[in-house]
Amino acid sequence: MKTLIVHAHPEPKSLNSSLKDLAVSTLEGAGHEVRVSDLYAMNWKAVVDAADYGPHASNPLEVARDSGRAFDAGTLTPDVRAEQEKLLWADMIILQFPLWWYTMPAILKGWVDRVFTYRFAYGVGEHSDTKYGERYGEGALAGKRALLSVTVGGPEAPYAARGINGPIEDLLFPIHHGILYYPGIEVLPPFLVYGANRMTGEEYTDAAKAWEQRLLTLDSTAPIAFRRQNFGDYEIPSLQLKPGLEPAGRTGFGLHVRG
Amino acid sequence: MKTLIVHAHPEPKSLNSSLKDLAVSTLEGAGHEVRVSDLYAMNWKAVVDAADYGPHASNPLEVARDSGRAFDAGTLTPDVRAEQEKLLWADMIILQFPLWWYTMPAILKGWVDRVFTYRFAYGVGEHSDTKYGERYGEGALAGKRALLSVTVGGPEAPYAARGINGPIEDLLFPIHHGILYYPGIEVLPPFLVYGANRMTGEEYTDAAKAWEQRLLTLDSTAPIAFRRQNFGDYEIPSLQLKPGLEPAGRTGFGLHVRG
Repeated sequence: MKTLIVHAHPEPKSLNSSLKDLAVSTLEGAGHEVRVSDLYAMNWKAVVDAADYGPHASNPLEVARDSGRAFDAGTLTPDVRAEQEKLLWADMIILQFPLWWYTMPAILKGWVDRVFTYRFAYGVGEHSDTKYGERYGEGALAGKRALLSVTVGGPEAPYAARGINGPIEDLLFPIHHGILYYPGIEVLPPFLVYGANRMTGEEYTDAAKAWEQRLLTLDSTAPIAFRRQNFGDYEIPSLQLKPGLEPAGRTGFGLHVRG
Repeated sequence: MKTLIVHAHPEPKSLNSSLKDLAVSTLEGAGHEVRVSDLYAMNWKAVVDAADYGPHASNPLEVARDSGRAFDAGTLTPDVRAEQEKLLWADMIILQFPLWWYTMPAILKGWVDRVFTYRFAYGVGEHSDTKYGERYGEGALAGKRALLSVTVGGPEAPYAARGINGPIEDLLFPIHHGILYYPGIEVLPPFLVYGANRMTGEEYTDAAKAWEQRLLTLDSTAPIAFRRQNFGDYEIPSLQLKPGLEPAGRTGFGLHVRG
């Protein structure tokens, strides 16, 4: 297995960095190849702007179209091309980050915004009245799998089904489904460490054991059963789920998970 | 009314910039005071790091605690203090941005990550077994109102209740509830422009009229009826919604909206 770990924490001695280091040693120890994009160590540029598209930046700038033209011409900036190449190389992608304001830190969002360009991660395939692209289960990254490894400062209960923060699976849905599944990546259930702001040594030991266990069983872990866009579950062209496909009472993001 | 517009688009001739300019002229024309944080024009630093906390950055860095100590001591960086001051000045906060990968662009997430520090936007009030802070309806920004003005590249249907992208109100919930309502801001229903990637002149005229109408009726627009954390709706300390408070069949993020 070839694994890309994209790591987004500013402190090398943090819990996130420890989990990243443990993933590297565990996977390499099991004979896998691992590459790491340590975004803070790389001084990753987080912000999309005209400089990303070189000679293909139009005036006025059109982010989608210009990024696609630069992708097609091979003139995206070297940092972005390197990340796209790593994604194409990997079978497994792990995003390691702390939950900040209920989603990923800006530096990681900026990795998505800049690397997931038009014609690479979206705008792929036929777009017409009968088909709206190859996405949600198809696309340039189909056949790959991904996993979020997320530390959460607070306790678990407020992230449960009735918790005030919202269910964690719904908070992560826009990343799981909207970012990773969109260009075709299958998504494994996340690895979550709650109470990350006040962890005892014993709690860390338990979390590390659980993480090793997840890492060593990635091959046998079933992905989240998101519905594919182009295989009969959705009305065309509205892309709304056909009536009656969901279990009784299911609504919202959960509609897009089978069974 | 004192309005702060936080604007997050790299192109001054974009739809987003036009909507921002229209908001300034419409509100000023109606006698209101307006300030604009144009994040790209300000070259806003999007990434949280130790430099944000000056002498209060500990080694190893602890983002929450260090940001709180720097806030209390008044030693946050001038750019962050200026934004906090603008938030305290404003009655109304408008975030103007394009939906990129189903949420805000990295530069705006970085504004949240850096400006919404511990002791300013979270970690406020008593934290004990019987109370988990002043948040979700209370906090430093209570009494203010906010509104997202969002452009969406694709059409509206896939963002409806059964749409493949997920319902737009659920996609925006982590911003509405998790970022804005958390420190006490009441949130008005969003202003949304779909099909932003292929707009005709006529469609722009219609969108501009609708935006002016929203801007001139902000005072009489009811906020989203999010439930307050500390007024009896939630179990303590789990912070889960008490049984039976919701309309039949409602689940997920919608549990946290009354009625």
